[in-house]
Amino acid sequence: MIYPILTAEEAAQFVKNGMNVGVSGFTAPGCPKKVPAAIAALARAEHEAGREFKVNIFSGASTNDATDGELSRSQALNYRTPYQSLGELRNHINAGEVHYNDRHLSELAQEFRYGYYGKMDIAIVEVQSITDDGELVLGTAVGNTPTWLQVADKVIIELNDQLPESIRGLHDIYVPLDPPARREIPIYRAGDRAGTPTAHVDPKKVLGVVRTSEPLGLLSKFTPVDDVTRKIGENVCEFLVNEMRQGRMPKSFLPIQSGVGNIANAVLDALEHSDEIPAFEMYTEVVQDSVLKLLESGHCKFASTCSMTFSREAMMEFFSKPELHDKLLMRPSEISNNPEVIRRIGVVSMNTAIEADIFGNINSSHVSGTRLMNGIGGSGDFTRNAYTSIFLCPSAKNEECISTIVPMVSHVDHTCHSVDIIITDQGVADLRFKDPIQGAEEIIEHAAHPAYRPLLREYLALSKMGHVMQNQDLALSFHRSLALEGDMRKTDYSRFAVK
Amino acid sequence: MIYPILTAEEAAQFVKNGMNVGVSGFTAPGCPKKVPAAIAALARAEHEAGREFKVNIFSGASTNDATDGELSRSQALNYRTPYQSLGELRNHINAGEVHYNDRHLSELAQEFRYGYYGKMDIAIVEVQSITDDGELVLGTAVGNTPTWLQVADKVIIELNDQLPESIRGLHDIYVPLDPPARREIPIYRAGDRAGTPTAHVDPKKVLGVVRTSEPLGLLSKFTPVDDVTRKIGENVCEFLVNEMRQGRMPKSFLPIQSGVGNIANAVLDALEHSDEIPAFEMYTEVVQDSVLKLLESGHCKFASTCSMTFSREAMMEFFSKPELHDKLLMRPSEISNNPEVIRRIGVVSMNTAIEADIFGNINSSHVSGTRLMNGIGGSGDFTRNAYTSIFLCPSAKNEECISTIVPMVSHVDHTCHSVDIIITDQGVADLRFKDPIQGAEEIIEHAAHPAYRPLLREYLALSKMGHVMQNQDLALSFHRSLALEGDMRKTDYSRFAVK
Repeated sequence: MIYPILTAEEAAQFVKNGMNVGVSGFTAPGCPKKVPAAIAALARAEHEAGREFKVNIFSGASTNDATDGELSRSQALNYRTPYQSLGELRNHINAGEVHYNDRHLSELAQEFRYGYYGKMDIAIVEVQSITDDGELVLGTAVGNTPTWLQVADKVIIELNDQLPESIRGLHDIYVPLDPPARREIPIYRAGDRAGTPTAHVDPKKVLGVVRTSEPLGLLSKFTPVDDVTRKIGENVCEFLVNEMRQGRMPKSFLPIQSGVGNIANAVLDALEHSDEIPAFEMYTEVVQDSVLKLLESGHCKFASTCSMTFSREAMMEFFSKPELHDKLLMRPSEISNNPEVIRRIGVVSMNTAIEADIFGNINSSHVSGTRLMNGIGGSGDFTRNAYTSIFLCPSAKNEECISTIVPMVSHVDHTCHSVDIIITDQGVADLRFKDPIQGAEEIIEHAAHPAYRPLLREYLALSKMGHVMQNQDLALSFHRSLALEGDMRKTDYSRFAVK
Repeated sequence: MIYPILTAEEAAQFVKNGMNVGVSGFTAPGCPKKVPAAIAALARAEHEAGREFKVNIFSGASTNDATDGELSRSQALNYRTPYQSLGELRNHINAGEVHYNDRHLSELAQEFRYGYYGKMDIAIVEVQSITDDGELVLGTAVGNTPTWLQVADKVIIELNDQLPESIRGLHDIYVPLDPPARREIPIYRAGDRAGTPTAHVDPKKVLGVVRTSEPLGLLSKFTPVDDVTRKIGENVCEFLVNEMRQGRMPKSFLPIQSGVGNIANAVLDALEHSDEIPAFEMYTEVVQDSVLKLLESGHCKFASTCSMTFSREAMMEFFSKPELHDKLLMRPSEISNNPEVIRRIGVVSMNTAIEADIFGNINSSHVSGTRLMNGIGGSGDFTRNAYTSIFLCPSAKNEECISTIVPMVSHVDHTCHSVDIIITDQGVADLRFKDPIQGAEEIIEHAAHPAYRPLLREYLALSKMGHVMQNQDLALSFHRSLALEGDMRKTDYSRFAVK
């Protein structure tokens, strides 16, 4: 190997205060596991010596504790994009200590190439192997890595010996040319390969290789299906079966996108156990353990993803079964989430909402309008371009103190124009064909929790008529009541009406 | 000709109460000019006879007075989508008398084919010519006509002898297959032809032909450039020139999308008179008179559009100059506004906002959150997928009683994630790279009217900290003050704070 072998600490020395640093991966899988923590240690030393030391981190999506955790604990983050999901980083962002830019995941790579973020100083990339001419087999996710390898001035490699050789062939690396030279993305089915199994880096840019031996897969598991999530899953199944019966969905079904978390798991569980849903493909950004089960059972015929977000056990199982390896491809976020492909192949999108309003606008990211939860992630890429776009949420939370259906969302990530269906444990609200007021009635009667229906109806009765109905004294009254009383059910409209 | 010749009144008799009716065209051009008014007359007769008579109208965008005007004056509209711009229809919609569904213009055709709107009973289509085997040369716009011709049970043709033969060749008719059979849209430059010069209808579906002799082109003209719109145009030019200098925009420039109206005209005027903007292409949904000037001068090399929204004079001029005819193509809305093409060729989008908030969310459609102005139109199709997305508005209106920059927009059509740049007469706010609070400072200092900057800064000071800052007592205070006092400058935050 022509590259210098470095310790993580030696590699970290190349990183200077204020640098733009790209990291490989998408969610925890595929992220570098040693160098970011060494940068954090360097930052603490610099801070103790009275010197400023903060970096800007560009990733594929969220990262791991060694990156967002260590760097935020060390006050070493100045700027972060395009997504995150770690409690400590979230607190720093919400305190205004880290500048966080929430982006559609399909867009960051091209925006960086267009020059909107300046230059990238260093990329840190986990790989299974690297050749002397710069051919890389990546880890268990792709994210924005292929673009970081193109645009970064210098590259640090983490060579993880826990990545099995059989991962070669699971990646589909395709970086579009930029306008005016861009061509079509040649994907017409979830399983089509557009690019190459390996990524490429100019060997002259490689600062060195850090050898690691880090386990793959996630430690955390999602909590099991409960009554509410089970009911949501059943409602999704019933809706999709009816779409097929009514001829609105082809009998051959369409590729599914499904987000992360307990609700997504419950939905996949319900699809697996349905007698009427045929075997389907997935075109999505993450695959959880439930997708491995579907691949094994044959309910899922192919999974196109950006990341293998499996638990440690599921990861071991997947790599022990070579017969599954031609049923999965990992692509760059720019391709896994690409509007062109999503619209062309007719993806049915299913994403989780923090709250929805009665007019069908969705808040996916900000609790009470100010506190970032995780971010918009890929939900906008899929929702806007879906064949049918579905949002999922429980109708109420915190022992019914919080209604997820509100008069006006406190933060908008997806406008009503992109939302076809809202499904809760209460039922299915179908917004297609309807005007905003008809949509409001549909949502109140079919998606809202019964405890909140009278309050929501009263809001409409107190609202100013128009194409949309709104009362600007009361639009945010549910949120204000929650802040004042700890319970949205205690909303008293007379309290907020201005005399 | 094998088709029965009908009067408009005879043709209207085929239309029954409750039918789904598709009309050709996109904005006034290309719309049927006689049959819709005859339907309106029929509706009035039916109403006088005590019978219900209302129809659902599906168009490309807004229509003409003979359609939306006559039908709404006759109380003959039950449902309308995907866009409108006529004062009388607007009033009926805002009074809750017409169900109006505001849609992204690129999406309606496919949603109809997917079955989301039921079946289409009748399509009414203006053409220049029709052959016995159903080959049609369309009028001065395409809109959703090719899909209506596919999905409608029956078709009524308006054969307008004022459409010159030389219009043949200006249309590019391409209807994508639906998932899972869809392929790429083969457009890589604004000028690429994807489809055929003619549309097609099954001759057995044609109920008959109504001969018309209706003038082409719009009567109304936009008001001339004034100080505010001139300043906005200059700011756009300055921004684009700087993007080229900084290497964020290719030296060869990129295709431009520009909306309708006075601000768009002022921007095109400024681009024409700039020494530094090279000749460019347009990939847009409408071309106004100012684009004809650009085509004649060579500043615009090619215009891809959905509609020729020229004045009567400009329409005459265009058809008298055959040398211009290979510089323009009219495509279906599904293609003119297609995310795949817009993102691939790198369109720079420029659209007008009704209001923007300090966090970069845009209201394009609803005055004070309730009253529909026109609709979202193509702004979302272009904005989300643009290389650079720009929103334009004057910083204040109505003698400064209204600030277009507000703490929270009263209706969201475009979320901050899709908004790169906001340009007013005050300057350029560049939101790229910035987090929400940095973005708010940028918008307040560079885009807001100076009379409103202290109030906007005070709002931030009174807001709850988080990734986004918000005060839920005061978020809509500008709008509430306008309603109470007729002047947003009179916003008194203490009035709205809940004790």
